[in-house]
Order: sequence, then C-alpha cells, then structure tokens
Amino acid sequence: MSRALGIDPGSRATGFGVVDLTGNRLVHVACGAIHTPSRASAPERLAIIYRGLLDVIERHRPEEVGVESIFQARNARSALVLGQARGVALLSVELARLPIVEYTPMQVKLAVVGYGRAEKGQVQEMVRRLLALPEAAGPDASDALAVAICHLQTSRTARAVRERGAALVRPPGPR
Amino acid sequence: MSRALGIDPGSRATGFGVVDLTGNRLVHVACGAIHTPSRASAPERLAIIYRGLLDVIERHRPEEVGVESIFQARNARSALVLGQARGVALLSVELARLPIVEYTPMQVKLAVVGYGRAEKGQVQEMVRRLLALPEAAGPDASDALAVAICHLQTSRTARAVRERGAALVRPPGPR
Repeated sequence: MSRALGIDPGSRATGFGVVDLTGNRLVHVACGAIHTPSRASAPERLAIIYRGLLDVIERHRPEEVGVESIFQARNARSALVLGQARGVALLSVELARLPIVEYTPMQVKLAVVGYGRAEKGQVQEMVRRLLALPEAAGPDASDALAVAICHLQTSRTARAVRERGAALVRPPGPR
Repeated sequence: MSRALGIDPGSRATGFGVVDLTGNRLVHVACGAIHTPSRASAPERLAIIYRGLLDVIERHRPEEVGVESIFQARNARSALVLGQARGVALLSVELARLPIVEYTPMQVKLAVVGYGRAEKGQVQEMVRRLLALPEAAGPDASDALAVAICHLQTSRTARAVRERGAALVRPPGPR
C-alpha cells in the first residue's frame, strides 16, 4: 500500500486530498480545504495554511506528496499571491521530510480523465467515480485528490516499468 | 531604542538587515544574505530560507519587520518563484509573532534617498552613509537594510505625529 497526499495551494483555500493505493485499488482516505478568513493579513493566512497542512500530514501520515507545478496566472500580482501560498505548502512538506513531486495540470488531467484538456467538472466527476465517493468533493478538495491520484498512478507505472525492467535484465541460471 | 529587521526575499538569495534606531541615530546591527544552492530543489531552497530567517530572528531579536510589498515581476513564472520565497519569509516572521509592515519600493527609496525613483546604486550608497558602513553591503543585504531604515523612519514619524496629536487633544486642566 502507498498513501499519497495531493495539495492544491491557494491563498483563500488550500485543498488537500489523501488517497491510498492498495494493490490496484484507489481508496479515499480524507479530503478538504483549509480556508483562510478574508479579513486576515497575508502572514496570518500563510500561518493558517502552514498549520493546517502540518495537521493533515500529522493526522494521515502520507508517504509521498504531489502538487501541481505550472500555474497559468492571470497576471504577475495573482502569481505572487499564489506563489506565497504554494511556498508555504512546499515548506511544510519539506519540513515533514516527505518526498514531493510536481505535476503539470495536463499530467493530472491525463492521469485522472485520460484527456489532458479535460474540463474542471469532468475531473471532479472522475475523481468521484475513481474513489467511489457518494458525491463530488468541493472544487479545492477535488483538485487535490486528482493530484494524489495522478501521483499514485504515475509512481505505480514507474514501479511496474522498473520491476519489469529488472526482470528482463536478471541473468539466467539459478538464483 | 527600536530594532527593525528588513527582508528582501528571493529564491536564490534572501537579503536581511537589522538596524537599531537609538534616539535619532540609525545603527547597523547585522546584514547579509541567505544563499540557496542552485542544485537544490524548490522545497529545499524554501527550507533553507525559512531556517536562515528564523536563525536571524533568534540571534538578533528584532521587534518589528519590514518587507517590500509590490514587485514588478518580469512575468508570471518569476512572480510565482519570488512569491514562494516571499511566502516563506512572511511565514517565518508570523510564526515568530513579530509585526510585519509592507513598503512599496517607492516608499523605501523615498525614505532612504529622498527620491522615489532612485537607482539601485544610489540606494546602496545612501544605506552605506546612513549606517556609516566602511563599504557598501552586497545588493541583497543593502536592499534589506534599506527596508529596515524605511520602517524605522516611517514608524518614528508616525510616533511623532501620534504624540504631537495626543498633546494637542489633551484636555486642559490638572493632570
């Protein structure tokens, strides 16, 4: 079994999703969003995100973490604000000594929906189906779950290639 | 006496500068830059910045912190990377429970050089003179010192206005 945490960082809401891969089965463990009050200052918001993510890591003990890599910001100002939240998310994972892998939005969509240009609603619905959730998670939690699923599927494929590769190059004769 | 820490966040180098205001005199306490190795991953860099700033705060015990607010990013990508470093800087100050004030680059230049559109070299030279440094500090340290000076001068002015204001509105008669 491997357990992955996906994070969707944002200044107002940072989504998180924890998913297990047991054999070939994806199992939902937890998901949600860390909301920050709109009247809070930027440093206060960042501390809320930091403490919230440390709490999620402490509570669910993921082994690995996935986060979306490239962001199409509307402008430099919103990229700066998103970057601040993202920096704090990366920091909390690093301080917890967990490996972190970045995925492009296209990789995430490809892994979850099988189509790199899928709409947000399609991703949300596929996440719900893959994890057999009774109803779709909120948008931030759903995006985070999608990153966790992408991470688990990508590392499963990589492991299979590694193992098959190892089997192929194993020298003949008695072990 | 008040002691201010100025921070100039950056992914490769985060400048810091600690300055005391004793009466009307600005006194240099410490300055430098937290450099991150170019081969380090983004999360590793952020952890280096975080630990470095906590160390500066622990060592020099500033009472207040200033940081530059608006950044003219070349593009969304560089704003995102800068934002990550800035988020970690704001977080470390917030976790140390220090008040933080943001200043625009124009406010900083105005406070230090007396001219909001001053060149980088002019700021560096005025910081050197105001703090009676034997030679100019490096660019990142110098920018951070400039923010600390701006913060001390701005809060001194605010305090003077407050005190004079208070004196003016104090009701007549025996205390």
